[in-house]
Amino acid sequence: MPSHPVPDIVVGRLPVYLRALTAMTQEGKVITSSQELATRLGFTSAQIRKDLSHFGEFGKQGLGYNIPFLSEQLRHILKLDRIWGVVLVGAGDLGRALANFQGFQERGFEIRIVFDSNPAKIGQSLGRFVIQDIDQLVPSLHESDIRIAMLAVPARVAQEVTGRLVEAGIRAILNYAPTTLSVPSGVFVQNIDPAVHLQRMTYYLLEHD
Amino acid sequence: MPSHPVPDIVVGRLPVYLRALTAMTQEGKVITSSQELATRLGFTSAQIRKDLSHFGEFGKQGLGYNIPFLSEQLRHILKLDRIWGVVLVGAGDLGRALANFQGFQERGFEIRIVFDSNPAKIGQSLGRFVIQDIDQLVPSLHESDIRIAMLAVPARVAQEVTGRLVEAGIRAILNYAPTTLSVPSGVFVQNIDPAVHLQRMTYYLLEHD
Repeated sequence: MPSHPVPDIVVGRLPVYLRALTAMTQEGKVITSSQELATRLGFTSAQIRKDLSHFGEFGKQGLGYNIPFLSEQLRHILKLDRIWGVVLVGAGDLGRALANFQGFQERGFEIRIVFDSNPAKIGQSLGRFVIQDIDQLVPSLHESDIRIAMLAVPARVAQEVTGRLVEAGIRAILNYAPTTLSVPSGVFVQNIDPAVHLQRMTYYLLEHD
Repeated sequence: MPSHPVPDIVVGRLPVYLRALTAMTQEGKVITSSQELATRLGFTSAQIRKDLSHFGEFGKQGLGYNIPFLSEQLRHILKLDRIWGVVLVGAGDLGRALANFQGFQERGFEIRIVFDSNPAKIGQSLGRFVIQDIDQLVPSLHESDIRIAMLAVPARVAQEVTGRLVEAGIRAILNYAPTTLSVPSGVFVQNIDPAVHLQRMTYYLLEHD
């Protein structure tokens, strides 16, 4: 681990490096270079070398990076040398897509329990899960080691549910509700709002293209 | 419009400001301040004032911002004073959730057509859409004014589909495939990969918490 705080923007690029290295492994590659990674990712090779240098020396000048070794190191840095249990709150269309998605486990995550507040949904199945009553969220999670939540509920209830999640020991929230959550220090939030992403691009679109 | 290029990070915050202003409107508020917005969003008021100052003067010292006026200005800046047609590629679980999501239209977007490559899905319905054959993507879009795509396909085919989208005149891609897309200059990509967002948070989680 580095002795100095690493800028969050650097931390945010590490999962993208790991994803590219995993794809290279699937393509049968064993060695890569900062230049090859840069070309694949649209970054500069200097940036990749500088980002990685926060955490140590992972390659030899002129020899490039050993992909399995660098992947293992990145997994260790990102604490992905384990599977993190995840709670999903919200069993609507998006919740269903998340519950059925097969790609989480190989990247370090496993949804373990699903909650909803709708009496018509509680007790019904969602993929391999039985939907639990959100009123049981705090006691259920207190007995578990789950520290990560995916929040796929309407914006109007997102803050109230967030309060319950924090009370239940959740420390990281992937927020799909289109609203800004207020959380105490030590709780981390990442936001996924497709409209925000789309609106960021329309700014750049030409009027007549 | 500003006479100087605005940093992309500033552009990226404007949709979040607009979302907060819309929520305030729904709460019946008419006037706000950079301080109130800052508290709600977890930013500093100085940053909000500086971000907005790139585009003009939207408030009067001591009087705050008129929410309907500032919202209208932000919609104009982000080119949201219209509805953008969107093509959705990929009719899996995620595509279904996107096709059924009711919240896009009020934020400037409308899915107009859905494509998939799976013969078992083509011709079937997905919400209010009939799934179209991806081999018709280029001719169908050429006849339309659609410039925005949501890409909800597996990573292994994402680049090939992206090539077709660009050929068909698409200029902005919301990429849900867990891979980095290569696009020509003048085409914009925003990426949504939940595992990347989760991995960025596990870095900060304590070992025993």
